[in-house]
Amino acid sequence: MTTSYKRLDKDNAAVLLVDHQTGLLSLVRDIDPDRFKNNVLALADLATYFKLPTILTTSFETGPNGPLVPELKAQFPDAPYIARPGQINAWDNEDFVKAIKATGKKQLIIAGVVTEVCVAFPALSALAEGFDVFVVTDASGTFNELTRESAWNRMSSAGAQLMTWFGLACELHRDWRNDVEGLGTLFSNHIPDYRNLMTSYSTLTNSK
Amino acid sequence: MTTSYKRLDKDNAAVLLVDHQTGLLSLVRDIDPDRFKNNVLALADLATYFKLPTILTTSFETGPNGPLVPELKAQFPDAPYIARPGQINAWDNEDFVKAIKATGKKQLIIAGVVTEVCVAFPALSALAEGFDVFVVTDASGTFNELTRESAWNRMSSAGAQLMTWFGLACELHRDWRNDVEGLGTLFSNHIPDYRNLMTSYSTLTNSK
Amino acid sequence: MTTSYKRLDKDNAAVLLVDHQTGLLSLVRDIDPDRFKNNVLALADLATYFKLPTILTTSFETGPNGPLVPELKAQFPDAPYIARPGQINAWDNEDFVKAIKATGKKQLIIAGVVTEVCVAFPALSALAEGFDVFVVTDASGTFNELTRESAWNRMSSAGAQLMTWFGLACELHRDWRNDVEGLGTLFSNHIPDYRNLMTSYSTLTNSK
Amino acid sequence: MTTSYKRLDKDNAAVLLVDHQTGLLSLVRDIDPDRFKNNVLALADLATYFKLPTILTTSFETGPNGPLVPELKAQFPDAPYIARPGQINAWDNEDFVKAIKATGKKQLIIAGVVTEVCVAFPALSALAEGFDVFVVTDASGTFNELTRESAWNRMSSAGAQLMTWFGLACELHRDWRNDVEGLGTLFSNHIPDYRNLMTSYSTLTNSK
Amino acid sequence: MTTSYKRLDKDNAAVLLVDHQTGLLSLVRDIDPDRFKNNVLALADLATYFKLPTILTTSFETGPNGPLVPELKAQFPDAPYIARPGQINAWDNEDFVKAIKATGKKQLIIAGVVTEVCVAFPALSALAEGFDVFVVTDASGTFNELTRESAWNRMSSAGAQLMTWFGLACELHRDWRNDVEGLGTLFSNHIPDYRNLMTSYSTLTNSK
Amino acid sequence: MTTSYKRLDKDNAAVLLVDHQTGLLSLVRDIDPDRFKNNVLALADLATYFKLPTILTTSFETGPNGPLVPELKAQFPDAPYIARPGQINAWDNEDFVKAIKATGKKQLIIAGVVTEVCVAFPALSALAEGFDVFVVTDASGTFNELTRESAWNRMSSAGAQLMTWFGLACELHRDWRNDVEGLGTLFSNHIPDYRNLMTSYSTLTNSK
Amino acid sequence: MTTSYKRLDKDNAAVLLVDHQTGLLSLVRDIDPDRFKNNVLALADLATYFKLPTILTTSFETGPNGPLVPELKAQFPDAPYIARPGQINAWDNEDFVKAIKATGKKQLIIAGVVTEVCVAFPALSALAEGFDVFVVTDASGTFNELTRESAWNRMSSAGAQLMTWFGLACELHRDWRNDVEGLGTLFSNHIPDYRNLMTSYSTLTNSK
Amino acid sequence: MTTSYKRLDKDNAAVLLVDHQTGLLSLVRDIDPDRFKNNVLALADLATYFKLPTILTTSFETGPNGPLVPELKAQFPDAPYIARPGQINAWDNEDFVKAIKATGKKQLIIAGVVTEVCVAFPALSALAEGFDVFVVTDASGTFNELTRESAWNRMSSAGAQLMTWFGLACELHRDWRNDVEGLGTLFSNHIPDYRNLMTSYSTLTNSK
Repeated sequence: MTTSYKRLDKDNAAVLLVDHQTGLLSLVRDIDPDRFKNNVLALADLATYFKLPTILTTSFETGPNGPLVPELKAQFPDAPYIARPGQINAWDNEDFVKAIKATGKKQLIIAGVVTEVCVAFPALSALAEGFDVFVVTDASGTFNELTRESAWNRMSSAGAQLMTWFGLACELHRDWRNDVEGLGTLFSNHIPDYRNLMTSYSTLTNSK
Repeated sequence: MTTSYKRLDKDNAAVLLVDHQTGLLSLVRDIDPDRFKNNVLALADLATYFKLPTILTTSFETGPNGPLVPELKAQFPDAPYIARPGQINAWDNEDFVKAIKATGKKQLIIAGVVTEVCVAFPALSALAEGFDVFVVTDASGTFNELTRESAWNRMSSAGAQLMTWFGLACELHRDWRNDVEGLGTLFSNHIPDYRNLMTSYSTLTNSK
Repeated sequence: MTTSYKRLDKDNAAVLLVDHQTGLLSLVRDIDPDRFKNNVLALADLATYFKLPTILTTSFETGPNGPLVPELKAQFPDAPYIARPGQINAWDNEDFVKAIKATGKKQLIIAGVVTEVCVAFPALSALAEGFDVFVVTDASGTFNELTRESAWNRMSSAGAQLMTWFGLACELHRDWRNDVEGLGTLFSNHIPDYRNLMTSYSTLTNSK
Repeated sequence: MTTSYKRLDKDNAAVLLVDHQTGLLSLVRDIDPDRFKNNVLALADLATYFKLPTILTTSFETGPNGPLVPELKAQFPDAPYIARPGQINAWDNEDFVKAIKATGKKQLIIAGVVTEVCVAFPALSALAEGFDVFVVTDASGTFNELTRESAWNRMSSAGAQLMTWFGLACELHRDWRNDVEGLGTLFSNHIPDYRNLMTSYSTLTNSK
Repeated sequence: MTTSYKRLDKDNAAVLLVDHQTGLLSLVRDIDPDRFKNNVLALADLATYFKLPTILTTSFETGPNGPLVPELKAQFPDAPYIARPGQINAWDNEDFVKAIKATGKKQLIIAGVVTEVCVAFPALSALAEGFDVFVVTDASGTFNELTRESAWNRMSSAGAQLMTWFGLACELHRDWRNDVEGLGTLFSNHIPDYRNLMTSYSTLTNSK
Repeated sequence: MTTSYKRLDKDNAAVLLVDHQTGLLSLVRDIDPDRFKNNVLALADLATYFKLPTILTTSFETGPNGPLVPELKAQFPDAPYIARPGQINAWDNEDFVKAIKATGKKQLIIAGVVTEVCVAFPALSALAEGFDVFVVTDASGTFNELTRESAWNRMSSAGAQLMTWFGLACELHRDWRNDVEGLGTLFSNHIPDYRNLMTSYSTLTNSK
Repeated sequence: MTTSYKRLDKDNAAVLLVDHQTGLLSLVRDIDPDRFKNNVLALADLATYFKLPTILTTSFETGPNGPLVPELKAQFPDAPYIARPGQINAWDNEDFVKAIKATGKKQLIIAGVVTEVCVAFPALSALAEGFDVFVVTDASGTFNELTRESAWNRMSSAGAQLMTWFGLACELHRDWRNDVEGLGTLFSNHIPDYRNLMTSYSTLTNSK
Repeated sequence: MTTSYKRLDKDNAAVLLVDHQTGLLSLVRDIDPDRFKNNVLALADLATYFKLPTILTTSFETGPNGPLVPELKAQFPDAPYIARPGQINAWDNEDFVKAIKATGKKQLIIAGVVTEVCVAFPALSALAEGFDVFVVTDASGTFNELTRESAWNRMSSAGAQLMTWFGLACELHRDWRNDVEGLGTLFSNHIPDYRNLMTSYSTLTNSK
């Protein structure tokens, strides 16, 4: 008896970005701000690159939680944007679920702030409705490591798969030959070490 | 086949506070004292706010373990209070179990000191009797991280869900519109970063 | 040849609280928020308890830096309050320096946000003018530990003494007999472990 | 459908101490030596206190691995002592398994050095034969935390329960009234914080 | 009902070394370089010592990823060597899978860089095809601990077993008597503490 | 007797960027790559913003050390650029020292890779010649924390002042009124938390 | 010009144990309890072994601070024992200073709880009076690492030397030939790794 | 007034390797064994490469401390080798000091085990006699970080300079042109990241 490998398929995946708001971001203390910003933007670039349907949602953005990070709003001008009037679990918002179902995708890639609420609640709801859920752990942040570990444990126990943006990109792309330059650019823009490798390499080969 | 999401329901949940005693608290070294105190009081405020039936229990409080933290005693003057004569696992105390069953609730929210004993033992017993168990990981403390991780592993393997007080509050509240001010006050009193967001916000909007 | 011990004297000390503003506090990531809030309030209580002249100052409080933390404003209603129009080093503000000199004190106790700027700059300026400077390291916060260590090194090299609020309180008080209850209350309110000791003790002695 | 709680029963449990040898102990770097020594001796005292059948085994003790820690040898002079001629997994040694089966116990409490080999191998073998296995995580040591986490994951996935010596003692004892002084002494000897609580308490009560 | 122990069998195991390339290694930051290099070479020596069929594969080695670490190339001159033209998941490369199946082994020991991609993808594919998978966690590296923990969680949830090279060696060897000197040499070459034990021992016994 | 405050003066300061090369950067492991890249670029922006004379130098850039990070080359197209033919201590290179002396500045701000060599050696040489030296600790990187602490200790003992880029910017700017927008932009581009504060603030004030 | 080495001389040194009380010990969180207890007892054994005059003092031992740790009281039955009526800085107590001066020693070895108060205050006072001060850093404890580092910085800046008990023992003993067995026993009793080395060694040599 | 830069001069430096013995090495827990072994061997290679006079010394090598690490003995067959009969501070051994003075060097590079004794004592003695002392912090090990920091503080306060082997090599070499290949080989053998850079580079340039 074998397990089946739930493998990301770029034709069957959608991205949900939940509550990356300027106020809420000040609560995130389990990942350094420089790294976290980079991870969230990398995930956004990834969604754009693979043309994954992307859905934005916010909680109370006219209050202390603050507006959605402007970079995300700018990057997905045509994406469904659900400013929830009060529901904490985005899945409790009908528009949000409708937008997801409208994509026709069965694999949901979820990231948000804070992990144990804005990510975990819709992740658990989606799993309960039969979706495959891929949590982007490094583009989701929360108060501290203890909270993060609790949230991961709850989601993983319910069947969510924990991934990071780099793994997502690689699993979606499958083969470098599909587009070397595109994937390389994504990595170069968000992985300083990889950028350095590419610079060293191109400098040397250009000097030939 | 889908998993079902065991979601907290404020009409079906009770809180068990186990052995938060002044002596035992000196054993807690996996969480900083300032943060731990805040977490425990936040959980108490949450229980009060959502009017969850709450049950207090202590172990040998006339000995070195010390009395229950006075703040908890003061906050729940009418709660069942079971000073156990010797049972280490609170579930072995008939009065404790009776008090729980008297609430008629099936979702048990448990926190205590120390995690691997005062929390894990009744959690495992409750799971074995068919209750849903939600461990409040950040309001439960123990000797060190190695011990905590072992205890979490044991409870999680048996079906307990690991949560923190903030996630509990959000899952119980469901929708900000149920009471913005009440939940906001709870957060403001126990999350300094959130309090700061609220102060910045109200200062700016009041200055308009 | 012996060194001389620069010992705090409650009749010769003033407290400077620099830029504990709600926006700037979101930059503090070298100390946990729960602990940091407690430390700042403990320092404020200490200043009140020892009747030390206290001076408040803020930077751009109508902008993103946000207002002074309301608790501090409330606790020192009659203290000199210098909302600096632009000077980053508070010592560059004449009103601030005048307020300090008006106290007639030669020992300056400084805390603020962020450590390497709002604390270090006036500390270095004060040292250069011959004041004794006591930095309250645990009521001062900054971006990360690397920054903190750099700032401590610079201040210590220039002659500042690094202390924490508890040490300050003890050195100012000198002898428990001056007021057991007052100091005990200060500790009980800000050191959970000490509060527990006191509760255990009083419970036992009262039960006699 | 409920899970069943595999609860330790002092009448059905045996302790296996695997390869706590003076040479191998220099490999243990995931727990501080002072704490690790204390944990191992606490486990030994616990086994003695609860009169649990205890089995000692070593690997190549005449070579670099070194002899069994003398304290263990002295504490269990009549315990089965299997100096394995070469088997790395103690369960591959017939005498070891025979000794276990001779106890008639179905709950095996295992600790040893190093965790991923001397503990994990017999733990996995015992689980495969239907025993309940309780790994004493804080009396088992290995090279580093990465190795430890891998080993815990493997054992837990196979059904082992991760516990620490304090939890074991509490679950075995069940009720303080069975013997307050005995359990108190065990704790006092191996938990400095608990010893301090007891000293404070007895000093105060004796002074009445 | 008992679990069955999936125990490594040197006659049924193959080793897959995936993308240990000089460029990619600069991405590894969850393990110190000195330790990581040692772990990878230890795994290589282990494969050689136990005569396990070993398969090497690389990704884009003429680009920035860089060539395979020369030590590995030199140690396995006759091993199948699959320089993948683009497939990110090595299992998507037919030659790679053919080489594995040609060994006739059902237990796959996998290590590589980076963990969540080069290790996790083929591990999940292999599990889905019914192989037993043993991930060598300490010879696999990635960007940081958060990424590592996510990857471990995903692989473990799918049935992979997490091991380290030392545990692998011990489980494969089974009994020291099969070859004391060979295993001892492997340990002495890759575990400084063990080497020191052996030196102390042999110096003392030779001095007799 | 008072110490004098060596305060940065934008009219008397020059910036030295030493060996931020793509190959050498793979050696930096005491700061996360995302944060380190941000710090270096922030320092570059700071130098540009304050119009500080800036000098670039590299070591063996045609070999494995790799070329200067392209961003730095692009940002300072007219800066003196000394590709050292072999001197490890940049101060041993006459052109480098000449370029520094040509600026006429007496305050040297130094950052580089690796800290204990490329930063510490010229820092010590400059101190010995009477310059004031300000080490940018967070834009300088090395192998690990132990190395960093050793290097800091050596430089600090010789009189260097340890600062971070944010402190530098604040001490150079002196007063927000000199240019609120310019400094704000610098912070917004390199401090995610500050950017969020500014976004929340401007959103709220614009919505009035 | 050379510095002079302030070297410990067993004929010129006294030991001051300040406030190792059962209540105060619950405040110590910068060192693990098992290790801290061991360090304090090691220092006591060292004082006994080298026959150093030892002075005990406590603060408010009839209140929440609790009594002196009984082991210390038992080990130094004839030592001056100053239960201070209120002075926080032990040096403010005349009896304490008289007891020190009565020893005629000029080198003071100080340990206590908490570091920044009970150790730092008398250390600074003693330095100011011309004594040489050796702080036993690992037998002194406090709230957290931030506090410890501040306290060390203050004491070190004033001329105190920071040592640990093992270094003290070695500097006092000077030459193993003065008494191999005595020093070896001290180490064996308080350094598990050393004890293991001795056991391995003696087992091997006895087996010859 | 300027400080003078105490710069290492390969014609004026000697290396002292103190007590790197197989037993004592099991006490070293502030640096990982893989890294520590590499650092010590790198220092040895550095001494050989720069032809620095090197002096070996051991303490009680026939007892539990164990013999000198064989690699060091083999690498310096003709070096003065002082097996001290009992002196703990190597400087108390006349032969050791004579051997040092016979070299005629004034710059002493010291490494050893354990840092606060075997390194600090001779370092302090040498400083007191007017030598320049360079402590190799990463080739010196001890019980834990608290001990290391205390030892560094004591040595640094007395004038010792804290360096690591890589900084030493660079300061001794001065200019790559003195011997590119020699220094490159030293780095390649002891810095995995540097080796990878060199492999990538040479592969690319050879492929031209």
